[in-house]
Order: sequence, then structure tokens, then C-alpha cells
Amino acid sequence: MILIFRHGVQQPEIDAVLDRLGSLGVKAHVTRGAERIVLTLEGEEDILRAAQLEALAGVERLVATQKPYKLASRDYRPEKTELRLGRLKLGAKRIVVMAGPCSVESRAQCFEIGDAVAKAGATVFRGGAFKPRTSPYSFQGLGQEGLEILAEVRERTGLLIITEVMDTRDVELVARYADIIQIGARNVQNFSLLNEVGRGQVPVFVKRGMMTTITEFLMSAEYVMSNGNESVILCERGIRTFDTTLRNTLDLAAVPVLQSLTHLPVIVDPSHGVGDWRYVVPMARAGVAAGADGLMIEVHNSPATAFSDGVQSLLPERFADGMGEIRKVARAVGRTV
Amino acid sequence: MILIFRHGVQQPEIDAVLDRLGSLGVKAHVTRGAERIVLTLEGEEDILRAAQLEALAGVERLVATQKPYKLASRDYRPEKTELRLGRLKLGAKRIVVMAGPCSVESRAQCFEIGDAVAKAGATVFRGGAFKPRTSPYSFQGLGQEGLEILAEVRERTGLLIITEVMDTRDVELVARYADIIQIGARNVQNFSLLNEVGRGQVPVFVKRGMMTTITEFLMSAEYVMSNGNESVILCERGIRTFDTTLRNTLDLAAVPVLQSLTHLPVIVDPSHGVGDWRYVVPMARAGVAAGADGLMIEVHNSPATAFSDGVQSLLPERFADGMGEIRKVARAVGRTV
Amino acid sequence: MILIFRHGVQQPEIDAVLDRLGSLGVKAHVTRGAERIVLTLEGEEDILRAAQLEALAGVERLVATQKPYKLASRDYRPEKTELRLGRLKLGAKRIVVMAGPCSVESRAQCFEIGDAVAKAGATVFRGGAFKPRTSPYSFQGLGQEGLEILAEVRERTGLLIITEVMDTRDVELVARYADIIQIGARNVQNFSLLNEVGRGQVPVFVKRGMMTTITEFLMSAEYVMSNGNESVILCERGIRTFDTTLRNTLDLAAVPVLQSLTHLPVIVDPSHGVGDWRYVVPMARAGVAAGADGLMIEVHNSPATAFSDGVQSLLPERFADGMGEIRKVARAVGRTV
Amino acid sequence: MILIFRHGVQQPEIDAVLDRLGSLGVKAHVTRGAERIVLTLEGEEDILRAAQLEALAGVERLVATQKPYKLASRDYRPEKTELRLGRLKLGAKRIVVMAGPCSVESRAQCFEIGDAVAKAGATVFRGGAFKPRTSPYSFQGLGQEGLEILAEVRERTGLLIITEVMDTRDVELVARYADIIQIGARNVQNFSLLNEVGRGQVPVFVKRGMMTTITEFLMSAEYVMSNGNESVILCERGIRTFDTTLRNTLDLAAVPVLQSLTHLPVIVDPSHGVGDWRYVVPMARAGVAAGADGLMIEVHNSPATAFSDGVQSLLPERFADGMGEIRKVARAVGRTV
Repeated sequence: MILIFRHGVQQPEIDAVLDRLGSLGVKAHVTRGAERIVLTLEGEEDILRAAQLEALAGVERLVATQKPYKLASRDYRPEKTELRLGRLKLGAKRIVVMAGPCSVESRAQCFEIGDAVAKAGATVFRGGAFKPRTSPYSFQGLGQEGLEILAEVRERTGLLIITEVMDTRDVELVARYADIIQIGARNVQNFSLLNEVGRGQVPVFVKRGMMTTITEFLMSAEYVMSNGNESVILCERGIRTFDTTLRNTLDLAAVPVLQSLTHLPVIVDPSHGVGDWRYVVPMARAGVAAGADGLMIEVHNSPATAFSDGVQSLLPERFADGMGEIRKVARAVGRTV
Repeated sequence: MILIFRHGVQQPEIDAVLDRLGSLGVKAHVTRGAERIVLTLEGEEDILRAAQLEALAGVERLVATQKPYKLASRDYRPEKTELRLGRLKLGAKRIVVMAGPCSVESRAQCFEIGDAVAKAGATVFRGGAFKPRTSPYSFQGLGQEGLEILAEVRERTGLLIITEVMDTRDVELVARYADIIQIGARNVQNFSLLNEVGRGQVPVFVKRGMMTTITEFLMSAEYVMSNGNESVILCERGIRTFDTTLRNTLDLAAVPVLQSLTHLPVIVDPSHGVGDWRYVVPMARAGVAAGADGLMIEVHNSPATAFSDGVQSLLPERFADGMGEIRKVARAVGRTV
Repeated sequence: MILIFRHGVQQPEIDAVLDRLGSLGVKAHVTRGAERIVLTLEGEEDILRAAQLEALAGVERLVATQKPYKLASRDYRPEKTELRLGRLKLGAKRIVVMAGPCSVESRAQCFEIGDAVAKAGATVFRGGAFKPRTSPYSFQGLGQEGLEILAEVRERTGLLIITEVMDTRDVELVARYADIIQIGARNVQNFSLLNEVGRGQVPVFVKRGMMTTITEFLMSAEYVMSNGNESVILCERGIRTFDTTLRNTLDLAAVPVLQSLTHLPVIVDPSHGVGDWRYVVPMARAGVAAGADGLMIEVHNSPATAFSDGVQSLLPERFADGMGEIRKVARAVGRTV
Repeated sequence: MILIFRHGVQQPEIDAVLDRLGSLGVKAHVTRGAERIVLTLEGEEDILRAAQLEALAGVERLVATQKPYKLASRDYRPEKTELRLGRLKLGAKRIVVMAGPCSVESRAQCFEIGDAVAKAGATVFRGGAFKPRTSPYSFQGLGQEGLEILAEVRERTGLLIITEVMDTRDVELVARYADIIQIGARNVQNFSLLNEVGRGQVPVFVKRGMMTTITEFLMSAEYVMSNGNESVILCERGIRTFDTTLRNTLDLAAVPVLQSLTHLPVIVDPSHGVGDWRYVVPMARAGVAAGADGLMIEVHNSPATAFSDGVQSLLPERFADGMGEIRKVARAVGRTV
């Protein structure tokens, strides 16, 4: 950590800072430049941050020299994590495609979509049983009944199941059904929920929030990991910006940035990223070209009667075509699907 | 709701939309302009939205003509809500000032700050017992012990207590101690939590999230209200924008906008809004001038040793001075403090 | 255009609007729904917009049904524009790569970089002679001397030349040297400059501004085109968002969106998009996978002594390697380089 | 300037950096911490920035310790600048109100509005003769004829005149008529234009752009000042964020922040800030409460037939009422109007 004093800081102010650091057991190297006096500090960054040093008179600001996340960083684990899920490996050469409807609506719907996406090459089935909806008057999901249907899809197709949990009280229930538990974008800083899934053993798929910086995103992963569950998957799904042409702005540069900062697998969700089925396949291709370890894509057999997200869902045949395109790009960057 | 067809839409596409609307029991008036064919629809907006009509071929977009929130709207209750809390009224002529530390750290700290802010004219004491922190390694709050301390502050000073809840499982506990329950910015779309506090009777103080639009913010209030608890207070506390000079961008125009859209009381939190104690009082004055019904201000007796948010906390004497300035502006806009 | 009246609008207010429309020669179809009264208007959108109807009492809002741009739209020219530049075609199957230093610094620098990028497969040389710099104390470009050097690079390598103009008074000068004139991101709404380059015949390369919506971007193209110069090329180079991990947020979804809205060629500039050379090649690959017609990439022979943008510049050998990767992805999406 | 090496940097990398610094004549103090090696550098920040040191291997990042602006800073002039304009003083105790229509439309219109705003207490008349419009098909201003009308308004009412210039070629013309020259939000980084008005002597009113950070805003002022014209006025007029409820997000915290960083007068334009006349007066009050030195407010005698910005323009009688409210708040914060 580096502490920069304000221009014109007075000696008693400097002394007060040094005293405070002494009482925290922090060593400080003083450098007196022509323009500024600077302290280079040694000690646990967390302690220093907690020390609220910026509130001391004469201090301009603190500059962190360490990343605030540890377990999620490449310093902790330099090699990329390969997460084993049954026969699947996440974070390996083969790109994992997760596909399915936004909401679990019925057994028939899920069976039809599940059969189609399995045939097209997906290996994980997505579907929401608990749905975070902006309006309390919208469809909120089938709950446990939805989880049962998902289990039947797994039975029938061999696809692994990913589904969202929204409430700490449901974590145990969802964990009984899901192969991967999803934390939705709106819960990316629901720290109680992150702690709860972190205490379990089911891999956790954390979606970046609409306003989450890269550092905050990794800190959310850190919450899960610091509770003991190190099987975390990160998902870029679009951030919120001034441009409202599309539902979100898919931040694909987050893919190579995350790949350099963390060992965890990185997935792209182009469906939420663009919110319009016409742009899903181009952005899925782009996500793979940018270096993603996997894709999450919404597929629906009848988008116009879907309970949610119909506009951004691909018809099964379009998804199958898109898988062909994705496969070609994967090959071009030395991956498979 | 208005449905706009794409330029060059084909008759069979129009027929398919009309069929779908018919099956939903929705009446549609067709207007054929030179440029566009437009449908004006009658029926429950929620049903129509659920109908995912934008996924139908030939449809360019739907334009909502109704607000998605009902109970929170001025249509539901044209008069401003005056929320009674003991001797206090929120949303009335007198501006309510909530003040106190970010975190409850100790009995001594809370007693000292509580005495000071009560003397300066605050009527509600704030303090966090459950703290949402970006890092799992930061101080997470004293939990129930913190709640006990808050109850003692109330006993001692007569101040009402506001404190945050983060987990659905803690709602009952927090409700036993708090006069007002706070939903933090990061939980503004934690729908499970909104539902849970909505089932109780303690007034709910909802902080706008960093990325929450005005409509989404009102929908979060709607979540609480639709569960039966209509005592909701809204708080603008800064949004996240491209400018990182300050911690957040305090969106004060949200105050008159909210005042026109909803009957609920609107509070401004300048402390989180700017994140630097030097700008808190000017923005508190501005919040009152913009029409806020109250203020939430962080005060700490020793900012440099605070467990959190020291930099944005006012010393008790600065808070007292600031109250003098706030009082003058309140009078200038026909309010009292 | 659709005009939506406020809930509870009074008849005299409706009459006043209809009178005003009558005086503008606009036909209005009235639809009286249970909830809202709506007018569907026929007439030139521009006239209607100018009419400031939203300022009339009782009007809630206007909803445009036509795009505000004409010449830039697919309605005006349904086929994709192929822009011929000597032997080059922009907007055709072959992806055009523009490469070179941020600033023209010297003849030796430009010759070395020009030779290298030509060998690696670039077909256009970029280099700034007039530099828009945030600080008045930074290097502002070599001006005409820089233009002369660019002309020598063209002579020597056969590469076409693209360079920026910042001042209406320099347009004629720059047009004498450049094969393509660049309008920088900060001048995307410098309408005087857009008009001036629109009066010339040199193709114009318009960079999207940091805060430019897709519609505004196309309106900037429209400014150029409406002056007679229809040779416009659009460039996505990153927008400004809350996340400051990288210099900008490269909005790659803008590529397929623009491809669907306009017939003009769409280029991606990953160098400014990410601002860090380590992520340039992955995002160049992603840009091609998303459907871009070309790339603009900064290359420097000595990034650490560059006058500007050193951190985001590729060394010539890294650029050559990157071209290999880009070529593979281009092939995967049915293009060549 | 502080240079932070990457974790695990190698000695040859450090040596290369020190060599480069030596060749630039920069002194470097090395601090070797347990976690990081840090250099504290002495020398002109501009030279160091130009040196592109971040492109050197092993360097993580540079941290600036000086502000990049000089003339605009409080270090250069600790006292607040009082700008004399005839009988007016900008930046003094009396708040200056600038009012008038968006566009100069006709002599009759300007006379009527000019008379009304003068009577209500405004001291500067605003009106655009050159209009930056998103669409090339919108009204572009009356040009020189508009300037003539403005001069007549000054003659008639005694109000000073502020009007915008968009093209370097028009600066001399506009300077002959205007008492204050406005640089619009879209030209805030049109450096050629900033240089040109900086070479003149007419005070320059710089509007913050929709995406301009506080530092960039002050750098734009620095462009003007570094050319010799130190009479610069800053105007906050709303930034662009994710929330589209209003036209812009008025960043009122920029007022006290700017007041602390610069000696230049700071004005608030609530009309563009909110884009809806209903919220203009509350935000004008808030601007004054936040510490603004003046206000710019759009007033029109017939908003519904205005050529531009009708929706955000106040009727003259509403403006007069608003002035009464503004006056009260000014008094509450120790100012006059």
C-alpha cells in the first residue's frame, strides 16, 4: 500500500499518521520528493484498509498495491482451474455449452428443448425454477416442481443441470437437484447468499451484475471460495451502460482480462448480453474468439409464448445452426465444442 | 399498450399477432398509417408483457402506456403518504434527519454518537449490525450484539432506530429491534428479501441501487407493498457512473421525479452519495432544496479509526454545524427540521 | 409518430393538440382506449419533432416510428455498401486491416512500422499528424510535416493512408494527403467538421464517441452523407462505462446491430477499445467473429518511447502473429484477410 | 509520480526502467517492500507521462501525484476568481442568472423573452445563433442574423449576451457580438476550438460534456487558459448515465468538488440537466444550495412552438416565480441574486 500526503501537508499531520501506523504494527518507508511526501507501507492490506487512513488530516489517498482477492487470483493458483463435473471439464480445451429456456414452464417444454439442445451439442441444461423478476406481478417460477422437472431432463438426456437460487433458505433444496448452482446478476453482491452457497459443495456459477466492476466480481467469487467451496465459475452477461439499443452491453473484453487475473473458468451469456435473438449467435462466436471457456444460451421451442425472455431465445433449429458456427470459431482458436 | 409493426410487415404476420391477442382476450384497434401499422391494445399490461409479443415475426416493439407499478404510484394514492413512527411523521413538513455511524462498533461509540446527533436535532439513529462488505475479509458487523446496542441507544436518547437486514433468515430478528428496517443498495433487487420484509409490519427503507432506474426502484417498493406492508421509504444514495472522482454520483433530480411519480417519502443520503465528508453538508443542503423529506447522514466520533466509511463520516461537531445550514435551507423551501 | 396523452387528459387539451397538428398539416387518427387516448400521426417526423408537441399540456410523450437517419439506413440502400479505395474494397468479403502508430513521430519510425505492417498483411496505414490530446501540454502532432511523411509511406509501401482531421480549416489540407479522413471519437458530434468533410470527396471514417448511442452515431454519418459525401465508414472503438479496469468498454454487439441498421462498412478498433496491448489480439479476433468488415490496430516499433498510446500498441512481430490468428477466425466466419 | 512494479518483477526489468528514467533526467527513489518494489519519481509529470513507462516490461502502473492542470487549479490561484463583466461579477457573492431561449428564432421572440427575464432579475441573456443539433435536418440556427438580434436585446435590456460558437472559423464573428462565448457540451474536447477561443479575450463559458470527467473538464479549461485567455467559466449541465428517465443526470456534487479544485466560477444549467420544465426550478434551487455561482435557465414565451428544447423551457411567468424561490435559497446560503 502507498500513502500519498496532500501537497503542503504539515509535519504534525505526518506524525499523526506515523503514530497510527505504529499502533497498527505497520512499517512505513518515507520518501520526501520535491512535490509530495509518500509512504510505502508494509502490512496486511486488509488491516490497512480497515484503518480508514484516508480520514486522517493531510492524507490525499491510499493506493493499493495488492489485489483484494486472494483465492480467486492467479497468485494463489497460477494454473487454470479445470473443474470436473461428471464427464465434463470446465476450463479445459473443450468449450462447454449450457442451453435451455429462461424459465422451467412445464415438463413437455423442458423435454422438447432438452432433447433438442442435447442433440445439437450442449452438455448442460439451464432453466429457472426460482425467477428473479423486476415485477412482483410477473411469473416467479415453479419452485420445487421446476427442480423436479430439471432432474427428469437430466435423467432423460444426460445433460447436467444448472439452475438459480435466490434465497439462503432454498440453498439446501436447490443443491439437492442442481449440478451447478447459479447466482443471478442481481444477487452478485448478496453476500449472505454467497456465503451460503460457499458452505456447500455444489459448483457455483456467479453472474456478473449489471454494475459490477471486474474487481468486485472477483470479490464475489472470493466470498464463495473463502467459505470453502472453491468450485466457482464466472459468467459475463452484459453490463448496464448509457446505450439502451440493446438490453445490456456485453463486455467481451472482460473475458481475456478475467483469464489473466483469475484461474477460474469464464463463461459468456450472449442471450442476456444482447437481449435480442438476432444478435445471439454473432456474440456467441465473438465470445469464443475472445477466449471464453463456455457459453450459456437461451433456447425456447415457442419464444412468443414463453413465460419470460422470449425475445432473446433462439428456436431449437437456430440454436443447432448457431452451434455449427460456434464450432468453426472454436476450432480457429484451438478449442473444440 | 401500443404495438408497432416493422416497416414492410406482411399481412400473415399481422394476422398471427391478432390471433395471439385474440387468444389472450385482448382487444386491438388497428391504425394503418402511410409508414407504419400500429395496434392500440386494451388489457392488463402484465398479461401483455408476459405474452412476449415482441418475439412474434413482424413486430418491431411494444410501447407501454401504463406504469408497471401500482401501489407505489400517485394513481393509487394521489396524496403524499405521511408515515407515522411514534412521534415522528415521515413525508410531512418537518424534514427527518437520520444520523449515526456506518457500523455499530461498541456501546461507548454508539452512546457518544447517539447523544451528539440527538442534541444536534436528528430524530433517527442509524447504525449497521449486519454489514454488506465487498470483501469477505472486512468487518461484517456485530450481528445481534449490535442490535442490542441500538436498542440501548433508543432507550437512552429517544431516537428511533434504523438498521439493515441482509438475509431473509434475519428479518424476524431485526424486526424485533428496529423501528425502520433498511434494505441496502446491493439488495435493492433481492426479491426474496423484499418479499420477506413486505410480510412484516416494520416500515421498510429501500436504498436505490447503484444501477437502479427510477422505474426499477419503484418496482422494488412495489414488491414490499404487494406483500401487505405499505410503509415504504425511498432513499437516493448515489448511482454509479463513468465519473470516479467521488464514490458515487448523487442523482438529486431523482428527488422531484420520485415526488411526482410516487406518494412515498423520499430521503437523500449524501454520505454515500459523495463518499467524502467534505462534500456531505453541501449535498445535504442541496437535497433539501430539491425537495427531500429527510436525510441520512453518517456521523462518527473518530472517523480515522472507524471500522468502515470513516472518510465519509462527519465528526459530531461538524454534523451540528451542518444541521444549522440544513435548517436554513429547509426554512427557505417552506420546511422545518 | 405516436402521441400518448397523459392519464386523465382533459378534452380542451386534446383539442389544443389537434389544432396544433392541423396547423402543421398533420393527420391524426384518434384511438380512445380504456386507459389512454392515443394519436397516430402521419407526416414528416422531422416536422413533428420540431413541433415540440411534448411541451403541450396533457401530452405524456411522443414515440417515434421512423428512424431519424435516412441515407445511412438500410431502407435507403438495402444492399451493403462496398466502398472502393484503389484496389481495396471496404465492406466486402475481405477484411481490411488498418495498422500503424498512434502518432506520426518521424520518417524513420513510419517507414519501419509501415514496412512491417504491409508485410504482415495490412492494407491501410494509420498515423496521426493532428492529435487530439486531453492535455494542452502533450505532443500535438507534426501537422503538415506528418502528412508529408504519410504520403512517403504510401509511396514506399503501397499502403493507403488514413489520418485524422480536427479543425474545419485543415480539411482541405488533410484531404490532399489522405485516402481516408478520420473523424476522432471526441469530434463525433462536431457538426461543423462533419459538414466540412461531407462537402469533400475523400471517404470519411467516423469513430464512435465514448458516449455516443447507436442512433447518434448513425446521425453523425448522416451529417456527412447529407452534404453529398456518401463514402462513410463507421468505427466502434469502445465506449465509456462505470468499469475502469480498461481504458474503454469495447461494445462489440454494436457490430451486428450496425450491420442490421446501416449499409455502411463497420470497423473495430480494439487498440483504443481495450487500451492495453495484451488484450488487443483477442478482441481483434472477437471483432471479426462478431462480423466486422475491418480492424484498426495500433502498432509501434518502440512502445515505451512512443509519443502517445504506447501501452496499447503492438510490437510489429506481435502484430504479425496476431494477423495469423485473425486470419483463422476470418476463415471460420467465411471471410478472408 | 509513483511507479509500481508487477509482483515478481525481474532485476533486468527494473534496470531497464531506471536506465530509461536516467535518460529522461528523472530522479527515482527505490523502495523495496515485502510485496512490491516501488519507485517514487521526481520530475515534470508531463514528461513522465509522455515517456510511456507503463509500456515497459515489469511495470504494473504509474500513479500520478500531481494534477495534470495547472492554471485552472487552486495551487495556481488559491483565491476564487471574480470575473468582471461590465457591472457584473461572476464568482462573487451575487449569483448570476443567465436566461433566455434555446435558439434565437426572431427579433420579436427575443425581445419578449429578454424583457421578461430582465424584469425577473436575470443579468445575462442566452440564445443560440449557431445550434449543434443531432440531426442535419433540424433547425441549425439563424447564424449572423441571430447574433444581430442578440446585440439588439443587449441594447434594449442591458442584459449581457452569451451565445455558442461551434466552428473555429466563426470565433472572430461571434466574439464581435458576445459578452461571453459558449463552448457546448459536444465540443468540450474540440481542442481546436478551445485553442481558438483561448487566443481571444472574450470570456469563455465551457459546458461539461455528457461523458466528461472532472479532470478532463478542467483540462478543457486549461486548453483555453494556456492560450492566454484566463477568463473561463465552468458549467455543469448533466452527464449521461444508465438512467434515461430524464434527459441527463445533473451531477450537482460536481459543484462543491469543482469549487475545491479550481478558482474558476461554476454555473449550473438545470434546464439541460433535467430536460423537463417541471423539474427545472427544484434543481435550480438545489444548484444554489450546493454552492453554484450562477444558473443558466431556458425560458421561452411559447414552448410548444419553440424551434428546439421546448419541453425543458420555462414560461416567463414560471421563471419569475422560480426566481423568487431561488432568491430564498440563495439567502439561506449567504448569497444574493
